[in-house]
Amino acid sequence: MSVFGVPFRSVPQLQSLSTADLSSILQDVQRRYDAFRQRALALDLTRGKPASEQLDLSSALLGLPGEDDFLAADKTDTRNYGVLQGLPELRALLAPLFGTVPVQMVIGDNSSLALMHDAIAYSLLKGTVGSERPWVREPRVAFLCPVPGYDRHFSICQDFGIEMIPVPLNADGPDMDVVERLVGEDAAIKGMWCVPKYSNPSGAVYSDAVVERLAAMTTAAPDFRIFWDNAYAVHHLTDERIEIPSLIDACARHGHPHRAFVFGSTSKVTLAGAGVALFASSAENVKWFLGRMGKRSIGGDKVNQLRHVRALRDTAGLLALMDRHRAIVAPKFAAVADAFAAHLGGTGVASWLVPKGGYFISLDVLDGCARDFVKAAKDAGVELTPAGATHPLGQDPHDRTVRIAPTFPDLATVKVAAEGVALSALLVTTSALLAGRGVTTA
Amino acid sequence: MSVFGVPFRSVPQLQSLSTADLSSILQDVQRRYDAFRQRALALDLTRGKPASEQLDLSSALLGLPGEDDFLAADKTDTRNYGVLQGLPELRALLAPLFGTVPVQMVIGDNSSLALMHDAIAYSLLKGTVGSERPWVREPRVAFLCPVPGYDRHFSICQDFGIEMIPVPLNADGPDMDVVERLVGEDAAIKGMWCVPKYSNPSGAVYSDAVVERLAAMTTAAPDFRIFWDNAYAVHHLTDERIEIPSLIDACARHGHPHRAFVFGSTSKVTLAGAGVALFASSAENVKWFLGRMGKRSIGGDKVNQLRHVRALRDTAGLLALMDRHRAIVAPKFAAVADAFAAHLGGTGVASWLVPKGGYFISLDVLDGCARDFVKAAKDAGVELTPAGATHPLGQDPHDRTVRIAPTFPDLATVKVAAEGVALSALLVTTSALLAGRGVTTA
Repeated sequence: MSVFGVPFRSVPQLQSLSTADLSSILQDVQRRYDAFRQRALALDLTRGKPASEQLDLSSALLGLPGEDDFLAADKTDTRNYGVLQGLPELRALLAPLFGTVPVQMVIGDNSSLALMHDAIAYSLLKGTVGSERPWVREPRVAFLCPVPGYDRHFSICQDFGIEMIPVPLNADGPDMDVVERLVGEDAAIKGMWCVPKYSNPSGAVYSDAVVERLAAMTTAAPDFRIFWDNAYAVHHLTDERIEIPSLIDACARHGHPHRAFVFGSTSKVTLAGAGVALFASSAENVKWFLGRMGKRSIGGDKVNQLRHVRALRDTAGLLALMDRHRAIVAPKFAAVADAFAAHLGGTGVASWLVPKGGYFISLDVLDGCARDFVKAAKDAGVELTPAGATHPLGQDPHDRTVRIAPTFPDLATVKVAAEGVALSALLVTTSALLAGRGVTTA
Repeated sequence: MSVFGVPFRSVPQLQSLSTADLSSILQDVQRRYDAFRQRALALDLTRGKPASEQLDLSSALLGLPGEDDFLAADKTDTRNYGVLQGLPELRALLAPLFGTVPVQMVIGDNSSLALMHDAIAYSLLKGTVGSERPWVREPRVAFLCPVPGYDRHFSICQDFGIEMIPVPLNADGPDMDVVERLVGEDAAIKGMWCVPKYSNPSGAVYSDAVVERLAAMTTAAPDFRIFWDNAYAVHHLTDERIEIPSLIDACARHGHPHRAFVFGSTSKVTLAGAGVALFASSAENVKWFLGRMGKRSIGGDKVNQLRHVRALRDTAGLLALMDRHRAIVAPKFAAVADAFAAHLGGTGVASWLVPKGGYFISLDVLDGCARDFVKAAKDAGVELTPAGATHPLGQDPHDRTVRIAPTFPDLATVKVAAEGVALSALLVTTSALLAGRGVTTA
């Protein structure tokens, strides 16, 4: 996944330089960093939130469905109780984007994370399809965690005492040799976190071959589940609208129909606080999930579901909206990539993937430098996600990966912040090299 | 709770009659029942759903907050992530109605049942404030269940393998001698279900003395919780807006600050499918609950919260809305009470409380007659909640309690249905008396 080959502009490959040359460069970097810091900015690239301008794209939702509009297509009064699975027309609109059919989808409230949490809580308390017993009755439960990954996934596991086993995430998905070996031999491994497209935070996209191997592999646990958090299914940043295979279909084809738990939401399509979330899986898993949900609630907010149907109209309408998001978001990613290329390109002290979608850029610095880098950025007025957050228990064994979230601030701010980030990374890594530290294990 | 003293109009006290007189009455009742059945109606008094006319009272919500209105009072953009506890202004609006203060309240999604479910799931998986261990690690977990009660409460317990111990519910609340004895001696009793005002289904209202004893009693379990489902806090049916003491305050005063878990929602205030739910408790319990919720979600649907603030304006606005509900609902309850009085009054074969609020009327018939009664009503074209649903595991040991839900159909339908219900009850109980069955244990 490393891209240590970007052409440099101002700084040579640092690891090959003499101490004297390095010192000279450090002085120059320190001067530029200090100048940046003296601007006393307060910038924030911590969380993957949409910008106000993006939320404005869905301002029509705030007045929908309108006072006289509350009947679903089948004349259900959306204002009243019921329809646990969610409005059929909304499921029809979303299903093609998540590799499934409407009957195999359930609409949740506003948070896909909540559906993931609940799928685990239900499995712990009751077991899932094919479980020999509730997971809490197992001596040990473990999840595979491709790293770098999403901190909120890891928090759920940590909270419930689920052991997390890191697996390297490459540019085409998790290292499948490792995955196949682990799930094949360890029956305690009940699950695996995946963000298969434009992964949080590296931007990696799972290849067809990886999806195929995930679906086909033999697992020791009879109730092994892939938590397929397709959070960025339609969040393209380029003309290339990358598509990945349907994990549900692939699992069914390989005789493991219940393996895929697919999650998604419109949080970064419509409104981050007021969207709709979804769960999709095999028919039997959907029945299981609805059975659990049915103890918890009489049904979701169907008015909000209808509101989404009215605003988005159809699948094409949703994709057209995503193009408008892209027009706002892509320049911010370009600004970060430009700043990184300008200040870090060819230095060999930092690497990143220029993502083709999603909400993050992951910057890898020399080993042992990530924490200092985040601290230096903070001192310079740019708040970043804490180093380690991309790994289980907040522990990045190489101390090298930092997540950059450029969507929320406006473009001018992102440009400035990215420069601060790049200068901080350069300062910390150059200092480390001079001190005899700083190696690359990638 | 029995009201076996309502003056009769057409039928004398049946249990005192000779077989010949009873036979004569049965013939008359059978004739009237058959005439009703021949109308081949299809009426439904099964679930406590608001009528369309009630939902129309909140149709403004469907167009709110409006395209340009998304900032909370503190300028939070409600469209974006965050504000896990819920908008302060909505908590301020609701808190006085639930005996608490805004900081001790959490806003959930659209279902208070979901918050109850989650409070139990969290306690099972993690324990709650004062727990010695997660409840799943306890050899046995039990809840007290005042009966008759709400079937969905019981379903959650049944689903999670929580033992249910029935306790008699009187017109002023649960039999506190029984409650105090049980919680004092059995440390496995971790919880108790209560619908303290206009109880589902009997309409009972907990007295000040009962609330005081619930707050003061000594419990063997250090983490005993009262699940205070104040679902009908503002759902008055008479001029007498009954108020009950704050359980949270009473528990704090008696040195058991963490005993009360209070739940409520606007499901039957605004829209049943698209309201907001709430949890209220001690500050420490709220912190615990938010800690659990924070693993599950980044925050609720704040746009819907803002929508509610805009529509309801303030606490007084909510109460004014409830007056408009009452104008629609109260005549339906009166129609049922009238039909019961006309057909069953003074017969001694059925008893009911005329509720002063809430969504249900509970009709008790002679022991052993409830199932046959529900069947007879169904044969006559009136669907009722299954007999037994008011008790844990669906088992009413006396087979006598049936829940009537008159809110959803229009008034004319309720009038007709109530007549069918009364005739069915009269038919089945008269037959039972003639067959030498049918006793009253109340």
